Amino acid sequence: MKLNYSIGIDIGGTNTDIGIVSADGKIIDKENLPTNEYYDADLYMKDVAEKIKILLERNKISEIDGIGIGAPNGNTYTGSIDNAPNLNFKGQVKLAEMMKKYIDTKVVVSNDANAAAYGEMIYGGAKNLDHFITFTLGTGVGSGIIIDRKLILGSTSTAGELGHSIIIINGRQCGCGRKGCLETYTSAGGIRRTALELMEHNPYYSGVLKDIAPENLTSKMVGDAANAGDPIGIQTFENVGYLLGIAMANAVTFSAPQAIFLMGGPVHAGEVLMKPLRKSFDEHLLNIYQGTVDIRVSELKDNEVAILGAAALCQL
Amino acid sequence: MKLNYSIGIDIGGTNTDIGIVSADGKIIDKENLPTNEYYDADLYMKDVAEKIKILLERNKISEIDGIGIGAPNGNTYTGSIDNAPNLNFKGQVKLAEMMKKYIDTKVVVSNDANAAAYGEMIYGGAKNLDHFITFTLGTGVGSGIIIDRKLILGSTSTAGELGHSIIIINGRQCGCGRKGCLETYTSAGGIRRTALELMEHNPYYSGVLKDIAPENLTSKMVGDAANAGDPIGIQTFENVGYLLGIAMANAVTFSAPQAIFLMGGPVHAGEVLMKPLRKSFDEHLLNIYQGTVDIRVSELKDNEVAILGAAALCQL
Repeated sequence: MKLNYSIGIDIGGTNTDIGIVSADGKIIDKENLPTNEYYDADLYMKDVAEKIKILLERNKISEIDGIGIGAPNGNTYTGSIDNAPNLNFKGQVKLAEMMKKYIDTKVVVSNDANAAAYGEMIYGGAKNLDHFITFTLGTGVGSGIIIDRKLILGSTSTAGELGHSIIIINGRQCGCGRKGCLETYTSAGGIRRTALELMEHNPYYSGVLKDIAPENLTSKMVGDAANAGDPIGIQTFENVGYLLGIAMANAVTFSAPQAIFLMGGPVHAGEVLMKPLRKSFDEHLLNIYQGTVDIRVSELKDNEVAILGAAALCQL
Repeated sequence: MKLNYSIGIDIGGTNTDIGIVSADGKIIDKENLPTNEYYDADLYMKDVAEKIKILLERNKISEIDGIGIGAPNGNTYTGSIDNAPNLNFKGQVKLAEMMKKYIDTKVVVSNDANAAAYGEMIYGGAKNLDHFITFTLGTGVGSGIIIDRKLILGSTSTAGELGHSIIIINGRQCGCGRKGCLETYTSAGGIRRTALELMEHNPYYSGVLKDIAPENLTSKMVGDAANAGDPIGIQTFENVGYLLGIAMANAVTFSAPQAIFLMGGPVHAGEVLMKPLRKSFDEHLLNIYQGTVDIRVSELKDNEVAILGAAALCQL
């Protein structure tokens, strides 16, 4: 199918970003709205639709493939957001249905991690791949799974929650109520937590991270320290890479993908993460898969992936 | 599509079983051949084809949907067996191509665990399910994954090796060369191993399992002991159920299935396995999936699943 322009909407707890995306994956214009100032979802969608109309007019675009919406707890089957904890809209909010009242086009809703995976396929490094998985390291660890160029939704539209696969039985307490989830170790917060734990166990450590108040420490600081040769920083990312490598090797036993893509802030730490990650992945990958799977960094920019992923959903 | 009769071929290291399967999943007649007496794959396929012709003639059947072959290391994409360790045929053996020389029909090859999953969908308890996963407990732990009624093969035809997902990092040595694979704990051999370890750690134990020479102990004996109230037997199956429950909860984060089916000998231990398994699964299942996934026992008989699974492949 010949791609036209698509609209990508990224609904965050604070802001809503709305972009027009060209067929070759460029965000040609953007608008935004303060999500947290709305309590009536229908009024909110009406204003989002107004912004879209402004964008289309300003760019003299009359035809679009559709509107894609990436949102926390976005449900592709129902076109709704279901009980999203960080939004003012409670219960099930049927965004697609609401939007169609204002703009009569294809509207597809998905959660942000699934949208990111689809974005990688339509606009990023997976254009020519049939089978791949993405892991997004951020506040949590999101994931999206593509098999035979289809986004895996499962029976509930909530497939691909690999951040909540249990990597260490009875491990760290997770916000989900269980213990040992991958994201307790490899999210931005998990990285921070590992650095703090390592400092606690190394009382004689006197590097750069020691001087930062624990509440101010970020995964970015840990990554910067690692890249400057700091031993706690290095050890932290070795730990993250080790566990991510195992989680990825486990994911391969499921869908035998051609590649696994990493995205999100901590990935910018670079080789201090990627080197131990690749080593662990190779060590823990079942022999029959050796040489069949690449570990790659996403080709979408962090600040564009949400809109691009949402826009890509129009091709679903 | 209206189903006709299908041929299911189960290639084992010692024996090859060949069955005619009716549309409603009954094996109406069978033949077999000694796999291990053949060193020439083409001659072997010729003799298998002869057996099929005998079966068809004896049962006055002129039309079949096709021939399905379940085999260790069966590759669906290439119609071949690739480097199967327990067969005399080395390298890549293109079974489908060979068979078509003798019987001109659809021929589909798959590994036995994937075939079992497909059999559950066509003839078993998953006839009305779109998304499910099967775990087969046996010499190893096999698995098959169905998403949107499609068998997941991945990029290499070797998707669905959940028996080799790592459940305990640096855990038990696995035959695959790595450590902590699910099958080291939950295969028949893993069950035996757990019982022996528990006895070693409980020197005052004096139950029925104590009297069995370690080399003679089987997972069936452990299951029988558990059902007779033996504490080591019970504890062993509690451990197996606990770890399987976690592995299954992890699998749900991948494909959000409607059900997970268990098959294989150890499943006949019954509630001593199923009760701790369900408890662990519920405890370790991410909240968003609660109430959406059933743990079920396969509706295919152990001694029929290989032929039925292979025959089901004709519908692939």
